[in-house]
Amino acid sequence: MSDIWGKNIQFAIFGESHGTAIGGVISSLPAGIEIDFDAINHELRRRNHRAAYSTPRAEADAFEFLSGVYDGKTTGSALSFIIRNQDTKSSDYKNLNVTPRPGHADYPASVKYDGFNDYRGGGHFSGRITAPLVVAGAIAKQILKLQGIDVFAHILSIGSVKGKSFVDTGICDDTVKNLKEKIFAVADADLENAMMAEIEKYRSEGNSIGGIIECAVTGVPAGVGNPFFESVESRLAAMLFSIPAVKGVEFGKGFDITTLSGYDANDAYRYDGDKIVTETNNNGGILGGITNGAPVIFKTAIKPTPSVSMEQKTVDLSSKADATVEVKGRHDSCIVPRAVPVVEAAAALTILDILRGN
Amino acid sequence: MSDIWGKNIQFAIFGESHGTAIGGVISSLPAGIEIDFDAINHELRRRNHRAAYSTPRAEADAFEFLSGVYDGKTTGSALSFIIRNQDTKSSDYKNLNVTPRPGHADYPASVKYDGFNDYRGGGHFSGRITAPLVVAGAIAKQILKLQGIDVFAHILSIGSVKGKSFVDTGICDDTVKNLKEKIFAVADADLENAMMAEIEKYRSEGNSIGGIIECAVTGVPAGVGNPFFESVESRLAAMLFSIPAVKGVEFGKGFDITTLSGYDANDAYRYDGDKIVTETNNNGGILGGITNGAPVIFKTAIKPTPSVSMEQKTVDLSSKADATVEVKGRHDSCIVPRAVPVVEAAAALTILDILRGN
Amino acid sequence: MSDIWGKNIQFAIFGESHGTAIGGVISSLPAGIEIDFDAINHELRRRNHRAAYSTPRAEADAFEFLSGVYDGKTTGSALSFIIRNQDTKSSDYKNLNVTPRPGHADYPASVKYDGFNDYRGGGHFSGRITAPLVVAGAIAKQILKLQGIDVFAHILSIGSVKGKSFVDTGICDDTVKNLKEKIFAVADADLENAMMAEIEKYRSEGNSIGGIIECAVTGVPAGVGNPFFESVESRLAAMLFSIPAVKGVEFGKGFDITTLSGYDANDAYRYDGDKIVTETNNNGGILGGITNGAPVIFKTAIKPTPSVSMEQKTVDLSSKADATVEVKGRHDSCIVPRAVPVVEAAAALTILDILRGN
Amino acid sequence: MSDIWGKNIQFAIFGESHGTAIGGVISSLPAGIEIDFDAINHELRRRNHRAAYSTPRAEADAFEFLSGVYDGKTTGSALSFIIRNQDTKSSDYKNLNVTPRPGHADYPASVKYDGFNDYRGGGHFSGRITAPLVVAGAIAKQILKLQGIDVFAHILSIGSVKGKSFVDTGICDDTVKNLKEKIFAVADADLENAMMAEIEKYRSEGNSIGGIIECAVTGVPAGVGNPFFESVESRLAAMLFSIPAVKGVEFGKGFDITTLSGYDANDAYRYDGDKIVTETNNNGGILGGITNGAPVIFKTAIKPTPSVSMEQKTVDLSSKADATVEVKGRHDSCIVPRAVPVVEAAAALTILDILRGN
Repeated sequence: MSDIWGKNIQFAIFGESHGTAIGGVISSLPAGIEIDFDAINHELRRRNHRAAYSTPRAEADAFEFLSGVYDGKTTGSALSFIIRNQDTKSSDYKNLNVTPRPGHADYPASVKYDGFNDYRGGGHFSGRITAPLVVAGAIAKQILKLQGIDVFAHILSIGSVKGKSFVDTGICDDTVKNLKEKIFAVADADLENAMMAEIEKYRSEGNSIGGIIECAVTGVPAGVGNPFFESVESRLAAMLFSIPAVKGVEFGKGFDITTLSGYDANDAYRYDGDKIVTETNNNGGILGGITNGAPVIFKTAIKPTPSVSMEQKTVDLSSKADATVEVKGRHDSCIVPRAVPVVEAAAALTILDILRGN
Repeated sequence: MSDIWGKNIQFAIFGESHGTAIGGVISSLPAGIEIDFDAINHELRRRNHRAAYSTPRAEADAFEFLSGVYDGKTTGSALSFIIRNQDTKSSDYKNLNVTPRPGHADYPASVKYDGFNDYRGGGHFSGRITAPLVVAGAIAKQILKLQGIDVFAHILSIGSVKGKSFVDTGICDDTVKNLKEKIFAVADADLENAMMAEIEKYRSEGNSIGGIIECAVTGVPAGVGNPFFESVESRLAAMLFSIPAVKGVEFGKGFDITTLSGYDANDAYRYDGDKIVTETNNNGGILGGITNGAPVIFKTAIKPTPSVSMEQKTVDLSSKADATVEVKGRHDSCIVPRAVPVVEAAAALTILDILRGN
Repeated sequence: MSDIWGKNIQFAIFGESHGTAIGGVISSLPAGIEIDFDAINHELRRRNHRAAYSTPRAEADAFEFLSGVYDGKTTGSALSFIIRNQDTKSSDYKNLNVTPRPGHADYPASVKYDGFNDYRGGGHFSGRITAPLVVAGAIAKQILKLQGIDVFAHILSIGSVKGKSFVDTGICDDTVKNLKEKIFAVADADLENAMMAEIEKYRSEGNSIGGIIECAVTGVPAGVGNPFFESVESRLAAMLFSIPAVKGVEFGKGFDITTLSGYDANDAYRYDGDKIVTETNNNGGILGGITNGAPVIFKTAIKPTPSVSMEQKTVDLSSKADATVEVKGRHDSCIVPRAVPVVEAAAALTILDILRGN
Repeated sequence: MSDIWGKNIQFAIFGESHGTAIGGVISSLPAGIEIDFDAINHELRRRNHRAAYSTPRAEADAFEFLSGVYDGKTTGSALSFIIRNQDTKSSDYKNLNVTPRPGHADYPASVKYDGFNDYRGGGHFSGRITAPLVVAGAIAKQILKLQGIDVFAHILSIGSVKGKSFVDTGICDDTVKNLKEKIFAVADADLENAMMAEIEKYRSEGNSIGGIIECAVTGVPAGVGNPFFESVESRLAAMLFSIPAVKGVEFGKGFDITTLSGYDANDAYRYDGDKIVTETNNNGGILGGITNGAPVIFKTAIKPTPSVSMEQKTVDLSSKADATVEVKGRHDSCIVPRAVPVVEAAAALTILDILRGN
C-alpha cells in the first residue's frame, strides 16, 4: 500500500518526476461538497512558488479533474485528478542510477526495484510527487472548514535561526491570518530576514539547509482518535513521515517534555464558561491518542535537501568502486518554505480521515 | 482498527488494567518457528522490573499460550496468549471518571466512550497494556534473529542528564551485549548514577520525570521498505506513537539534522569490501523510506508519567466546576527504564512486518 | 489477515480444535452497549446442539469474557473472550498429516504450513472455530436489534429435499418467530420429517449430506453499502466463504436470475404510504452494491461434511504412494442445521460493519 | 475503500460513464515486468466488441499510461492509466435521478449520495467502469503467465441454453486455445447458435437476458491461500461481486454439491508421477480456503441487464407518487459475452494478489 493511504477516506498517489503525469485518487469523500478550485490553485502556488532559494524548474502545475466532481460538487465516487509533467530535462540525471547521490533514495531504490525504477529526476521519490498531496489536502481543508476546523503551519526554524513555538506563544487570530497570506510563512515577521539570510548563506556555496515546520489544527473537539495503533499521533506521524525529507515528528513540547517534571508537563484543566480547556498545551492537544479539545500542535524536522552542487563521495555500482558525483539538474537550496503547504495537507487529510471514522 | 495493527503480520491487543486479563493475538506468523519461552519471560521481566522508581504493584505477568503453538513451534495459525490480572486495588481509582487526572487519558476517553470506558487503573490506556506488545515483540525478535537482525535500545537521557547517541558513537558489540544484560539500560555506565539521581530527585517530591530512548536495528539489508505512505519511518513512527507516553520520534540525527548543511547531512557511500556502507548515519539508515543498509536508528521521547502525588487542578465533570485531584494508587516516578523493552518490541514487530511484505 | 476481519469493526479469531482454547477479539464496538449473555449462550447452543446427525463430542462451550465489558456493558475497548477446549481425543487423528483426508484441508494445509500446522481434529480448520464467530455474531445481533435490524436463516434444503425461498414466499412474522425457537430451523414444518429422513439415509451408511441455508436481514434502510469493491454482496460473500464448507453464495434469485428476462428480473418500485418498496425482490435487496430497502436475502451452499466413515482413496505423503484412509473420530453426518446460526452470525457482523462505516 | 481494492497489490478504480475519463492505479506491482500493450488492447476489445446484442455506443477505449512504466517495463511505483470518455449522449439520461430505473443502482445511489451522484449513464455504476479492471487484469495475466498460471473463462449458459461445466468435462488445451480466440467465448461450439438465438429472442422484444460465466485458473500450486477471512473463495468472491450484475458465485460443483454425498463430493487423491492430483474437482481446487493444486474453477451468475426498452413501473422521487419509466439510451440486450474478460480480469488480479502475499 505504499502509494495508497487511509482508512475512512483513501488517497492514492501516482507519478514520476519525468513521466507523463502525476496525480491522485481520493475515495470515500462525502457527496455534495462544493469544490473551491481557486483554493486548490492557491495551495499549489504556495508549494511551487519561485524564489531565490528554489528550483528554476517551472511547472505550471495545472491540474485536471477526471472524475468524482459533477456540477462543481463531489459525487461521492472516487475523485481523480492529474497534473501533466512538462518542463523536464532528463539528461541532467543520466548517471544517477550508476553513481547514486548521497542522501537521496537513488541507492536504496535501485536495490529495491532491481534498477528498474524511473530514476530521472528522482522518479517517484521526487518532491514533485507532493503536489497531488497538496491538491488532496486543499480539498480536505475545505471539508474541515465546514466543521470549524482550521489547519495552518509556520516555519519555526531555518538552520540555526529559530522562532517561537505555538505551544509557548499560544495561537492568535492575526498571526494565523498573516501566515495564510505569506509565501514565506514565518509567524514572527522580525525573523524573516534572518531566515532568508541563513538560506542565502548555504545557497551561495551550492549547499543547502533544512528547518522545522510547526503546524496547528484548531477546532477539533475533544474525544477524537483512538488509543494505541490508531492514536492521533500515530496517524499524523505516519502521514508526515511519508513526506520526503521529514526526519522527526513531535507533539506539543515534543522531545523537550522529557526535561519537564510530570507536574509541570501535565496540562491542568479548568472551565472556560461551559467549555473545558487546558491551561497549557504541552501534550499538543492529544492524551492517550485522543484529542482533549486543545489545538493539535506538532513539529516536523525537514532535512536539508540532499541535492547540493558540491562534489560528493559515492560508489559506482557498475564498476563496484568508490567514486564521486556532482549533482547537476535544478534544485532548491531550502525546501522548507515550499514544504509548509505539504505539511498542512498531510495534517488536513489525516484529521479528516480520523473524524470520518470517529 | 485501534486495537489491531499490521499488514503482513497482524497483532491484536486487548485488556484493561483492572479487568480479567490482558493479551494479544498474532496472525500470519510463519509456521515452524521454535518459540523460546524463557526469552519472552526475560523481556517481560525487563518491562516489569521492580526498583525504587517503579510502581509497587507486583504482577507476575505469567502468560499462557492458547493457540498457534504446537510442540513448541508456531503452527502458522493465529498465536494467542493471555496474562491474567491479579493485584488490583480498584478502589484507589474511584473518582477518576469524575475528576479526570491532568496528562492522563481520563478526560478524552470519557468523552469518546460516553463515560462507559473502564477507568479503573487507566483501563485500556494503562501502561500495563504494553505487556502483550512485549510478548509479541519477543517473538518477533526471535524470528528476526534467524535473519541476522538484532534490535536493542538504551536510555539516552533521563530529564536533563543526557548520554551520547549511537549516531555519533557508532555501535560496538560490547555495548550491545552489556545493554541486554542490564535492567537499567544505559550505554555509558558512567551516567548511570547521575540518571538514578535525577529520578530520585523527582521521586522524593512525589513528582516524575521523562527521558529519551534510542533504539537501533542492525542487520536489515538495503532495499527494505517503501516510499511515501509505507516508508520505514512511517511504519515505525505509527507503532512507536502507539506506546502511551511517547511524544516524539526522530530518525538518525532527527531534529538536529535541520541545522546541518546538505553536504554535511548526506551520508557518503563507500565500498567496504563488497559491501556498500555509509561513512556517517545522519539519516538513520533510511532514505526515501527505504533502508540503505546502515543500522536503522531512532529516538523516542517519553514524557514524565502524569501520575504524580501532588494536588493538581482539574474539573469536576458532574458538578461542572473547577476542582482539584490527588492521584493515589501506585505509580512509577520514571517509566523510561521499563519502556526500553517496549520500544524494542515495537521496532521488532514493525521491522518483521515490513520484511514479510518486501 | 487470514484470522482478522473487518473494516469499521474488526474481529480476530483464534484457536485450534485440540489446543488450549479458542476465542475472539472484537475491536471498535460502540461503548455502552448492554450485553445479553443469555442470548450469546442461546446462539452457542444452536450451533452446538446434539442430535442423531451430529458429533457426540460434547463441549460445554462456556465462554469467558476477558476484556471490553465492564458492569455488563461494552467499554469501547477491544472485547475479548475465550472458550476452553476440553473433550479432545487427539489419538483419533494421528495419521491425518501423513494420509490426508479427501475433501478436508489436511493436504493444502500441510503444504502451506510445511507440516507444522496442528492437524489434530482439523486444527484451525475445524468447524469448531466457528464458535467464536457465533459469539461475535450474537453481540452484533444485539446491536443491530437496537437499530431495528433482524437477522434470521432457515434450512432451505437438505440433499434433494428442498423448501421454498423467501424470495418467492415473502417473509411473514410468524415464520420468523418459529424459526428462532427451533433447533432444526425449517420454515416449512411439513418438510422437517423429509429432511430428517434424508440425513438419516446418509448417516446410516456412514456417509454425509449437505444443504442450502437461506438468510434474510430485515430492517436495513436503503442507501447502505458501496459500489464495486465494497459492495454489500462483496462484503457478505467474503465473510460467508470464510465459513468452512460453504461453496456457493447467491443473492435474491441468484443463479436462477440468469434465466429471467430483464423485464421480469427488475424489481419494480412503488410507494407504500411514504415508503418506497419493491414489488418483487429478485435482486435480494441490493442494487449496484447498495441496499434498496427490501430485505437482504442470500443463500449459501453447504457441502456435505467430508468426514465419512467409508474407506477413501488418498496418498501417503511419507512413502509418496497411493493409499487409503478411514476417518475415525466423531463427526456429523449433516452440519447444515448447526451451520444456521453461523451463517446468521456472519451476516450480522458484516451488516454491522457496513453500517458503522456508511 | 469502495474504489480501492487489494492487500499485497492494490488497485484503485475511478471514473463516471459520462465524466472526463475513467482509469485506474495499480500499486505494489513487481518492478521490471515488460508490459505487452497489444495484449491489453486485445482484452479491451473483447470487453468492448460490437455485435447485434451490444450497445451501439462506440468508445475507442484508448488507454494512456501516466506512470509506473519506463522503457516499457514496470518501475515498481504506482502504475496509472486513463481512458477518456468521448461518445456520450447525456441527454438520454436526464430524468433518471427523478424516476429511478428498476434493477439499476439509480435509487439506492440517490439515497446514499443525497442526489449528488453523477447519474448520467449510470455514472460510477456503469458497466463502463469495468474497462479499467480489464486493463489491470491484462497486466495481472501477464505476470501470472510468467509463473505458469493461465486464466480463462467461457459462457456456460445464456438464459435457458446451458453448456457443460469444466468440472464435468475437464479442461483440454484445444478448448482453451479456441476460447481465447473467440469473441463469443463458448467452449462447446455446437451451442453457439442456440445461445445467439436465445439473445435474439429477448433483443427483438426490447428485453434482455443473462447467463453464467465459468472461469478456470490453471497452474496455481497447492498451498496458496488462507483459512477463514482470506480464503481463496472469500477473496475471489469479494472481487467478483464487485462486477456490476453478478448475483451469484460458486466454486467447483457449487450449489449442486449440496445434493452429493460426502463420499462422492470428496476429491480423492492419487499420485500422477511425483505430483499429487485429485480424481475429481468438485471442490473447485480449494479446500479450507487453500488451493490443492487442481484448477481453481468457479461460476458467476450474470443477471439480465436491467436496461430494457419496455415501460416499467417506478416512483417519481420529486412528486412522491407512483410513475413509469422508459429507458432510452443505448444498451446491450445481453452483457454476458462482454463480461467474460471482466471475470477473467477479476480472477487474475485476485490470484496475483494472493500469490504475492503467500
